[in-house]
Amino acid sequence: MEIYSNVADLRAALNKLRQQNRRIGFVPTMGNLHAGHISLMHQAKTHADCVLASIFVNRLQFGPNEDFDKYPRTFEADCAQLREAGVEFLFAPTENDLYPEPQTYTVEPPEIQFMLEGECRPGHFRGVATVVMKLFQIVQPDVAVFGKKDYQQLMVIRNMTNQFMLPIRIIGGETVRAEDSLALSSRNGYLSPEERAEAPRLQQTLQNIRQAVLSGDHDYEALCRKAAANLDSHGWKTDYISIRRQQDLAPATAADRDLVIVAASRLGTPRLLDNLEI
Amino acid sequence: MEIYSNVADLRAALNKLRQQNRRIGFVPTMGNLHAGHISLMHQAKTHADCVLASIFVNRLQFGPNEDFDKYPRTFEADCAQLREAGVEFLFAPTENDLYPEPQTYTVEPPEIQFMLEGECRPGHFRGVATVVMKLFQIVQPDVAVFGKKDYQQLMVIRNMTNQFMLPIRIIGGETVRAEDSLALSSRNGYLSPEERAEAPRLQQTLQNIRQAVLSGDHDYEALCRKAAANLDSHGWKTDYISIRRQQDLAPATAADRDLVIVAASRLGTPRLLDNLEI
Repeated sequence: MEIYSNVADLRAALNKLRQQNRRIGFVPTMGNLHAGHISLMHQAKTHADCVLASIFVNRLQFGPNEDFDKYPRTFEADCAQLREAGVEFLFAPTENDLYPEPQTYTVEPPEIQFMLEGECRPGHFRGVATVVMKLFQIVQPDVAVFGKKDYQQLMVIRNMTNQFMLPIRIIGGETVRAEDSLALSSRNGYLSPEERAEAPRLQQTLQNIRQAVLSGDHDYEALCRKAAANLDSHGWKTDYISIRRQQDLAPATAADRDLVIVAASRLGTPRLLDNLEI
Repeated sequence: MEIYSNVADLRAALNKLRQQNRRIGFVPTMGNLHAGHISLMHQAKTHADCVLASIFVNRLQFGPNEDFDKYPRTFEADCAQLREAGVEFLFAPTENDLYPEPQTYTVEPPEIQFMLEGECRPGHFRGVATVVMKLFQIVQPDVAVFGKKDYQQLMVIRNMTNQFMLPIRIIGGETVRAEDSLALSSRNGYLSPEERAEAPRLQQTLQNIRQAVLSGDHDYEALCRKAAANLDSHGWKTDYISIRRQQDLAPATAADRDLVIVAASRLGTPRLLDNLEI
């Protein structure tokens, strides 16, 4: 695996690939990789001739109350996993490589940036959109893969890409789950054994809601309110469970198609995210 | 000259050029072309193997009190001038080509967007930055040329391009002037013969300021205040005359290098802009 931190060096390497008409698949990450990330690498491979991953913990998407410095950095282990997965290129810039001057020009997403995760994390999706726009300009991939686990992030990036007419195909990678349905996440490591046993209830709850909707229950608000109350009666602290339109994550009405149930709930220390498309 | 309105058709044509390793020079305009625009086309030619102009009156950069519908559209005459100048490609999208859905993702420039022209035109530079980012994604030029006449616009685009690391070289084209030093502008057509005779005083005023600064006068505020008062005593209504730092257009102090004097002043109906680098 070729590792680059310098932007000019990476560009030179990628230009060579492009001259050979090799399609580039790109998977941006913040490192601390698990099997969910690796499945995105494999997915990128099926759409491109070579895969470039990036590892960059992006200060811009951390809120003032979020601990940028404590975000887990596991570079050597990440590299081992990427090599094992057959990833050919890694872009791992320093902050100075990517932000040689403070980033004062930003990409401003619309209303979607203020709802759900955005409500808890002001400025988060602006920071995500800005760094991804920048990474896209540097890498100029043919295809980029983002996990459906962070559903709102995927939609922000997909819509940004469409509206700015970037010549990049955005692919949503399916969430990888443990056998008991818990979505893989680096946060799962913070669960106690009891909490870990309880954790699959989140996905189970979403599946129950999905079943109810498919059976004709269109009182989405009541459905989600009851589901949240049930979760909380099992020791969860639910931030939101909500049925939304996939594309813009606006609250769904009975008339809408292409829905997604999104949820964030705290179980002990960690805050778990999950979602399920309908 | 090949004329495209459809984005996909344009991309196909440009991809062919790129496969032949021909460098693309891009000059975005809103049409209503004069010799100032045409000099940008010639300048693009010196930096690229072929030149693509665009004509698009961008609703996004017009304020609520600015008349988008009355902006002069002179497509046939523009095409004749572009052909005459040897421009090979013209991109002239409809609003529906460029904005098939409302543009809700925008590029947000920093403080510079609120000063000088931005103070009179809220949202203007956001609209400029957003459409230029989008045009850059569609065209992917090697070089793009913007006139120094709209100095603040040039700086917004140059800084945006740098901060997002777009692989595009931004070139500032020198302002084309009448023999008596008046900067060419489609707004000059609204001047009465008497006003037209008076109009060169704007550039003359800037040259006097420049001379004073070079002679060691560092009281920039007093210099500009006196210059504005003098203009206004000749029938002008001056919005601003100011000595700024070139890069971010922040007010300059005696310690700053790379200065520019920027001015906007109304003479009769039209509002004339000019500037002069020091």
